Amino acid sequence: MDYDQIFSKAIERLHEEGRYRVFIDIMRNRGQFPNARCFAGHNGPKPITVWCSNDYLAMGQHPKVVEAMEGALHDVGAGSGGTRNIGGNTHLHVELESELASLHGKEQALLFTSGYVSNEATLSTLAKLLPGCIVYSDELNHASMIAGIRNSGCEKRVWRHNDLAHLEELLAADDPAAPKLIAFESVYSMDGDVAPIAEICDLADRYNALTYLDEVHAVGMYGAHGGGISERDDVASRLTIIEGTLGKAFGVMGGYIAASKTLIDVIRSYAPGFIFTTSLSPVLVAGALASVRHLKESAEERDAQQAAASRLKELMLEAGLPVMPSVTHIVPLQVGDPVKAKRISDVLLMEYGMYVQPINYPTVPRGTERLRFTPGPHHDEAMMKDLVKALVEVWDRLELRLAA
Amino acid sequence: MDYDQIFSKAIERLHEEGRYRVFIDIMRNRGQFPNARCFAGHNGPKPITVWCSNDYLAMGQHPKVVEAMEGALHDVGAGSGGTRNIGGNTHLHVELESELASLHGKEQALLFTSGYVSNEATLSTLAKLLPGCIVYSDELNHASMIAGIRNSGCEKRVWRHNDLAHLEELLAADDPAAPKLIAFESVYSMDGDVAPIAEICDLADRYNALTYLDEVHAVGMYGAHGGGISERDDVASRLTIIEGTLGKAFGVMGGYIAASKTLIDVIRSYAPGFIFTTSLSPVLVAGALASVRHLKESAEERDAQQAAASRLKELMLEAGLPVMPSVTHIVPLQVGDPVKAKRISDVLLMEYGMYVQPINYPTVPRGTERLRFTPGPHHDEAMMKDLVKALVEVWDRLELRLAA
Ligand SMILES: Cc1ncc(COP(=O)(O)O)c(C=O)c1O
Ligand SMILES: Cc1ncc(COP(=O)(O)O)c(C=O)c1O
Repeated sequence: MDYDQIFSKAIERLHEEGRYRVFIDIMRNRGQFPNARCFAGHNGPKPITVWCSNDYLAMGQHPKVVEAMEGALHDVGAGSGGTRNIGGNTHLHVELESELASLHGKEQALLFTSGYVSNEATLSTLAKLLPGCIVYSDELNHASMIAGIRNSGCEKRVWRHNDLAHLEELLAADDPAAPKLIAFESVYSMDGDVAPIAEICDLADRYNALTYLDEVHAVGMYGAHGGGISERDDVASRLTIIEGTLGKAFGVMGGYIAASKTLIDVIRSYAPGFIFTTSLSPVLVAGALASVRHLKESAEERDAQQAAASRLKELMLEAGLPVMPSVTHIVPLQVGDPVKAKRISDVLLMEYGMYVQPINYPTVPRGTERLRFTPGPHHDEAMMKDLVKALVEVWDRLELRLAA
Repeated sequence: MDYDQIFSKAIERLHEEGRYRVFIDIMRNRGQFPNARCFAGHNGPKPITVWCSNDYLAMGQHPKVVEAMEGALHDVGAGSGGTRNIGGNTHLHVELESELASLHGKEQALLFTSGYVSNEATLSTLAKLLPGCIVYSDELNHASMIAGIRNSGCEKRVWRHNDLAHLEELLAADDPAAPKLIAFESVYSMDGDVAPIAEICDLADRYNALTYLDEVHAVGMYGAHGGGISERDDVASRLTIIEGTLGKAFGVMGGYIAASKTLIDVIRSYAPGFIFTTSLSPVLVAGALASVRHLKESAEERDAQQAAASRLKELMLEAGLPVMPSVTHIVPLQVGDPVKAKRISDVLLMEYGMYVQPINYPTVPRGTERLRFTPGPHHDEAMMKDLVKALVEVWDRLELRLAA
């Protein structure tokens, strides 16, 4: 048994397919984001503009967030020092959970160390607690939801992306008495399309299914208070569980679910991924609390971000670049080949100081490789024009066809 | 299908068994830890002494750690804004990984959002990459290792805790050509005993198995540089993978593995729990980096902590309290009943302002419920004497027998 050879071959396969990942090594300049520094190995340390951050609203540098984190650091220290049950439950955790519950109009909320863990831990535990449960999963669901469903060991039906007729067909074909759970996302972050939440809730009512909505790319971003698409569409109360992250629009790190008191209690009491891990650092919790509270009251960042995203799509379309049909703040450019996507990204970084990561399999299906831009409130008109000019030059140079 | 009733019944079961968990709501006083504040619902906000933190060395309040975190907060901001591959790889991440690799004498290291995730993601991915792999797991392995092994879908053999003969018996019974992985911990944190690492490595050599060692409760704590029991026993180079946390002795939050370049590359490239999640906040990374570097050079905290643990064991034994036979920094007191363990803990908190969480199933086997004390470098003689006096009073009051 030559273990090393097996591992080396697994790496070789990635090189062959052109999807071996090289992490670009950067440091943001706080207060000047999207400006950042790029480190050695990528053409030496030099200034760059970041176009692919999920800190969508630049809350990671918001003075209120930074101040709150500094406060917690000086008040209580660096880490929580324990699991939620054993010494790691601070008053800040309790406050943030109550803030998040209110954000989504739910009785309670529960924090996890990440959005990934919240999905994995909740879905795997929930389905295990319901013997014979069948989970209906949108085919484009995130890896963390897929992991949770898989690890629950229960039966799974995959419905075609956002296809209500297919979902209904699958629901109707199963035993009406079996427990059912429909799991989906609101904003699909690689395409920028949105799920028909109300219609999915109608189906859930008809077939007596629970609903689980991942709002990771929508919390802080949509709805009058940043409660996500479910707030915007006024359907939050119809969903059994709403899941979100503190690491994207809220600019910090961590994840959560919001639901009924009983449901939260059951996940809190049974989910290994919640129970057996050091709780979120109080420093992060304090930052997230400040961020959630700020975005509940301020729509300024959301509005500026939406305006920037619309403007960039417009400029790209005018330049004939292959923008994919996103209805949200995500701006994806189709490439369709992993090697070319990486090449474009490399040239943009090395020659233009513009950083956008190529997105390839397994993050998106093979053949749909793309560049994914996330302009924020601080990407201005001049930056966008420079970016589009650079893209047109690179598209030209690499002989990628521009739209007619 | 009455979902709510099913969930309510699951909660009722916990109440019936006396193991429904109530999170004690505290805030530490930085710079004065183990002193903290306890919040309403637990006898009103009042000062307490924390006896059950896993911030073993109080590094969560170390000036170097706090300063480094403040620096990162001001330099780069609150969160990383992306996955390691897409915008969330900062130079601090790269530096910390190289520091951790050197701590364990390995070629490379890889960061995860927690120790839980590092175990789950690495074990599940590793075993999946080796078709037909059999995992040998110590029966007291942590929930996160169990989850990883379970989620790998491969065959698993459970060996009796620290029982080399049983492990060898299981190894010998399997196909010599099958890939094998032995997974275990160095310090078992609920009992305080230590694995015979060298002898397990001997067996691994004999049966051509990979080895995976969880050093979560030992990193920062043992070895001349805090490299764990594997450093102390000079066996680090014999282990395939060493796993650790940044959330206990290092006082911050996060997890990691250290191994060969190829192995790290393969986990980095294939593990969903690593790939599909926002990377550790650069603020945490900066704090952990300062902490690891400090504990590489300073043995002062380790020594003071060991002295405090020995002294507390001594005082408890003198008072006839049922200390379990720990050979490490962990000081467990046997209770053997979940209701009594909770009752002792409640009285200590409410009447004496001493916080030690009861440990019950599923964290430890039923019937072995206990109180687990973790005195640190700042728990002084007077605090310990007060604690022992209080314990004797409570033991008396609740008619728990003292040792002869
Ligand atoms: C849809 C979706 N859900 C969950 C996650 C995981 O959230 P987190 O980054 O907080 O782990 C992500 C991305 O990271 C995501 O895109
Ligand atoms: C043995 C062991 N491994 C792993 C973990 C998980 O580490 P973390 O708290 O960093 O998630 C823990 C405790 O939390 C543990 O006790």
